[in-house]
Amino acid sequence: MRILLNHSRVSVAAITSEKSAGKPITAVFPHLAGLTPLVCEHLDPEVIAKKADFVFLALPHVTAQEAAFRFQQLGKKVIDLSADYRLSDPVVYEQWYEHKHQYPELLKSAVYGLPELHRQTIRKALLVANPGCYPTSAILGIAPLIKKSAVDLKSFVIDSKSGVSGAGRSPSLAHHYPEVNEGFMAYKVGTHRHTPEIEQELTGLAGKQITVSFTPHLVPMNRGILTTIYAVLTMPMDTAQLLSLYHEFYRSEPFVRLLPVGQFPNVRNVRGSNFCDIGVYADARTGRAVVVTAIDNLVKGASGQAIQNMNLMMGFDESEGLKFAGLFP
Amino acid sequence: MRILLNHSRVSVAAITSEKSAGKPITAVFPHLAGLTPLVCEHLDPEVIAKKADFVFLALPHVTAQEAAFRFQQLGKKVIDLSADYRLSDPVVYEQWYEHKHQYPELLKSAVYGLPELHRQTIRKALLVANPGCYPTSAILGIAPLIKKSAVDLKSFVIDSKSGVSGAGRSPSLAHHYPEVNEGFMAYKVGTHRHTPEIEQELTGLAGKQITVSFTPHLVPMNRGILTTIYAVLTMPMDTAQLLSLYHEFYRSEPFVRLLPVGQFPNVRNVRGSNFCDIGVYADARTGRAVVVTAIDNLVKGASGQAIQNMNLMMGFDESEGLKFAGLFP
Amino acid sequence: MRILLNHSRVSVAAITSEKSAGKPITAVFPHLAGLTPLVCEHLDPEVIAKKADFVFLALPHVTAQEAAFRFQQLGKKVIDLSADYRLSDPVVYEQWYEHKHQYPELLKSAVYGLPELHRQTIRKALLVANPGCYPTSAILGIAPLIKKSAVDLKSFVIDSKSGVSGAGRSPSLAHHYPEVNEGFMAYKVGTHRHTPEIEQELTGLAGKQITVSFTPHLVPMNRGILTTIYAVLTMPMDTAQLLSLYHEFYRSEPFVRLLPVGQFPNVRNVRGSNFCDIGVYADARTGRAVVVTAIDNLVKGASGQAIQNMNLMMGFDESEGLKFAGLFP
Amino acid sequence: MRILLNHSRVSVAAITSEKSAGKPITAVFPHLAGLTPLVCEHLDPEVIAKKADFVFLALPHVTAQEAAFRFQQLGKKVIDLSADYRLSDPVVYEQWYEHKHQYPELLKSAVYGLPELHRQTIRKALLVANPGCYPTSAILGIAPLIKKSAVDLKSFVIDSKSGVSGAGRSPSLAHHYPEVNEGFMAYKVGTHRHTPEIEQELTGLAGKQITVSFTPHLVPMNRGILTTIYAVLTMPMDTAQLLSLYHEFYRSEPFVRLLPVGQFPNVRNVRGSNFCDIGVYADARTGRAVVVTAIDNLVKGASGQAIQNMNLMMGFDESEGLKFAGLFP
Repeated sequence: MRILLNHSRVSVAAITSEKSAGKPITAVFPHLAGLTPLVCEHLDPEVIAKKADFVFLALPHVTAQEAAFRFQQLGKKVIDLSADYRLSDPVVYEQWYEHKHQYPELLKSAVYGLPELHRQTIRKALLVANPGCYPTSAILGIAPLIKKSAVDLKSFVIDSKSGVSGAGRSPSLAHHYPEVNEGFMAYKVGTHRHTPEIEQELTGLAGKQITVSFTPHLVPMNRGILTTIYAVLTMPMDTAQLLSLYHEFYRSEPFVRLLPVGQFPNVRNVRGSNFCDIGVYADARTGRAVVVTAIDNLVKGASGQAIQNMNLMMGFDESEGLKFAGLFP
Repeated sequence: MRILLNHSRVSVAAITSEKSAGKPITAVFPHLAGLTPLVCEHLDPEVIAKKADFVFLALPHVTAQEAAFRFQQLGKKVIDLSADYRLSDPVVYEQWYEHKHQYPELLKSAVYGLPELHRQTIRKALLVANPGCYPTSAILGIAPLIKKSAVDLKSFVIDSKSGVSGAGRSPSLAHHYPEVNEGFMAYKVGTHRHTPEIEQELTGLAGKQITVSFTPHLVPMNRGILTTIYAVLTMPMDTAQLLSLYHEFYRSEPFVRLLPVGQFPNVRNVRGSNFCDIGVYADARTGRAVVVTAIDNLVKGASGQAIQNMNLMMGFDESEGLKFAGLFP
Repeated sequence: MRILLNHSRVSVAAITSEKSAGKPITAVFPHLAGLTPLVCEHLDPEVIAKKADFVFLALPHVTAQEAAFRFQQLGKKVIDLSADYRLSDPVVYEQWYEHKHQYPELLKSAVYGLPELHRQTIRKALLVANPGCYPTSAILGIAPLIKKSAVDLKSFVIDSKSGVSGAGRSPSLAHHYPEVNEGFMAYKVGTHRHTPEIEQELTGLAGKQITVSFTPHLVPMNRGILTTIYAVLTMPMDTAQLLSLYHEFYRSEPFVRLLPVGQFPNVRNVRGSNFCDIGVYADARTGRAVVVTAIDNLVKGASGQAIQNMNLMMGFDESEGLKFAGLFP
Repeated sequence: MRILLNHSRVSVAAITSEKSAGKPITAVFPHLAGLTPLVCEHLDPEVIAKKADFVFLALPHVTAQEAAFRFQQLGKKVIDLSADYRLSDPVVYEQWYEHKHQYPELLKSAVYGLPELHRQTIRKALLVANPGCYPTSAILGIAPLIKKSAVDLKSFVIDSKSGVSGAGRSPSLAHHYPEVNEGFMAYKVGTHRHTPEIEQELTGLAGKQITVSFTPHLVPMNRGILTTIYAVLTMPMDTAQLLSLYHEFYRSEPFVRLLPVGQFPNVRNVRGSNFCDIGVYADARTGRAVVVTAIDNLVKGASGQAIQNMNLMMGFDESEGLKFAGLFP
């Protein structure tokens, strides 16, 4: 809503919430007070389809499957922010999400919405699966290494650290303020559901099966993901050479910022913005590349990227509504 | 910069910094990377005046005196974000700031830039003194009480709590992370320099001398000021009646949001935005009004208000570039 | 548990929890791992009374009423950390807690456990009501002002700021990390249940009915309460004179630390300790005393004070187990 | 000081500070008020040696070299908390610290003070080099893997995350509150000075040269280090088997706590305590062991470990003064 309200080509036609139906959205999110009169309504695709040309789904996984299907049938373009249409293989989906996919045909037509990798197919897509926050940070950090054949494909270690908003807004002991504040932990070590999503995209880039070690951590802050990536270099190179691979790969990307040699990203510099900042290091001592990426998990890792995808799908300028600085401090 | 870069009527012509002259502003504030090519330069009014029609001064107090004077002589409209032109009486300035004011004539022409009180004079001003962050939060909370003659003018207690960005960006032990984090303190009790500024404006509203107890506190967060105001009611009223005084007073203000009975503001809802949120309570038990205000100290308490003032001085729409939601969470 | 495990005169005989009965306490609080083998059990006073000589009740209010009664009948000394036995007038209790008190006779015998005011009666008490966290911080700040007849008894404004642990450990949206972090708000303005407790003790000190304005606020930190108190001085005095009243009053208190003129407390300096730090200011401009107090809400505001009371009730040295520094940073 | 003041076998005889000489230590650290009358003095080994039997040096590296030497000459046992006596090879020291070691003979006699690895030599040592905070967290996590020959020695990736107190108490822009809060970054990627210290100890355990990828990160919290370690398993095993290697290795360690299968440590559970918590995962998908360790960087990572070493050197019970729970929340 924050971004859409200032997007020159969009007006928000409706907003749904089963829990808050009947309430103004400003009662649920008071920071929007004075900016929109919208009232939450129940999700009835037929009703919504009469009001809106384009639909963003921010529903729990499983639930999103049918909603996406129905909006497609009603002729609407859809971006699904859940995991339901990200994994192209329904067997992998079932394995990690413990639910059988109900719309395998529709799944085939869905495009993974990472513009840096799939811009052309996104432009033509009717259904885009918006990437997960961790996968966005990991894939953008690794893609150039694979495309430039610079590293051992068996050696990827991905160590990610996320702010707490990644866990959503439902209260739980794990995210109760005094449990999180002044704490730091790893969680779902080796078992996080974003792992197959990362592996799918890296495998697509490499043309052969890739498996990664992925560990998410919880940082006592609201927003941001920093991902530190390790891989064994297959050829000797220094940091400047490594960085040049990234400059080639991301030559004209509007939302990837590459840091100079010796600098590494900080999530504070992307907070609230759609940028992904990347810094790299070629470690001669160990023969490894170390790549660090930073995104705002709620912007480039979710709604900002969704709007970037919508811009592509609608033929708008890709950066429309998204070329703003983050909030610092 | 964050706000100006998206203001439709403005382009930023130059930026000055004695310490960082010669460096791109993005080296000093990396969150702006990719959004502006500006390079910091020394402050030379003659040089700047050739590039810019309008000048914002964000200099230390005392230093700003002369800069404002020179830009005025060069025919430029100026908004000074320091304290130098806020106190209309140079004797009071000298008393609290321990420096003699060098430009008492210019001081006479300066307008205190709180649009909710001085909109018409701001429109015509050549030099606007942008209010302090604490005074903005206090005066907006108290003005209706005085204008509506609802309280004992001797009874004001103003208890303010500010995030750490209010202290600026110079490192000091007092603002070293582990000293501030998990800490909370009062400081400059009874002696803070924003006190005379609050008293000047309240005195202006009341038509008689007002003295207030003002205590600032440091909150372990980046942005935001919450101010809790106490005053003895001179007539019995309930909260709905008290609130109606505020609705009358702030009837058509674009950036004041009044909360319904029973609700009180939270700085998180104004973070990054130009809004001032206000909630009130009439306490029948004690006979006091309690008023709580929240602003972002760097936006409505500084640069956002400065741009609101610029919009007025330049004849732009008052809300131009400022009607965006804050960043939550 | 943290304090009791290092108390030389105590061993913890049993711990109860309805929710976690059967689990080791270290499963509920992993920071205690390796320090205690205790397993949570259901609260059955007959069973517990066979194991323990002394009982701390940390139950929700209302629930604690009967538990205290039964342990008393079983001949055990009890400290109740809930609100159930704090308000000596059952009518006031009913008015603020919306429950009729079931044990008005027992209530008569309960002693309000603030050692600085009631040390002698606590020593002989069988049932001590441990004070609330806010009242501890407020009463310790105000008591000398009243006992020394230094201020107008109608003029008390008490503005308190608490860390989030004061809200307990039950998850709720209001205390979900991203809602609290980078936020600051007032809550229960004029209606917080600690108000009558403060008024009861101040009234007792003054010998006449006192009403106060009390506003609690939520600070994004785990522990600590800072309370800022305002009152109109009835005689002119400077800060040194005001401070000397406090030195007289708190002459030999083991856990009250008075700060020198010009210094004010910070909750970081009492974190994890049983100290109450106090700083004062006599404001000649406004004729008000401003008093600032800091405690750890979970130690001097709860369990530390309970152990201090136990030491008194059991005839131990009052400081036993409590003379340790807080944790800084 | 916090720990020593409650240590039954120790009294603190003197404390030195060049910057604060002449000031009571409570003026520098107000949380100690009421607990010690000590006044800071200049560091004059002859003077100190008359007062104290045992010396802790918490000086900047390079500076500590001579101080250790002089106290040794004066017959005092010394624990040096700087890096000066940690690296047994003066060439490596010079390479990473850019200073030639002035006391290579004394360096030979120094013992690396990690009790879990060197308990017997520490008992007899006159000079103990207290380990760095990151190395403590890394070595304790890796030692069992090497001793049990479970992993490929070329495959260690060590990803560490530290609270801000690790950076000391000198103000700097990098540790200014609003720069750190709501931020997260990697720093000194591949070049941090704790790297050779980790490699020295792992090499000692393995009997062959080990090189590691080590990346430190800065977490917006005061205390704590969480280290996530990755290594390629050389034999198939499940998590229970992996964990059993740790149980064997750490069978009777007083300060290492091993978490059950499926659980991982959180720095909040060791905050303020001398414990090192460890959780492990054997990832069948990737063939890697993932080990997560948590310590308080200022306790097990600094002063607590120093006192553990002192206990050993003085023949006290190893846990004396250290068997307390951390502070949660």
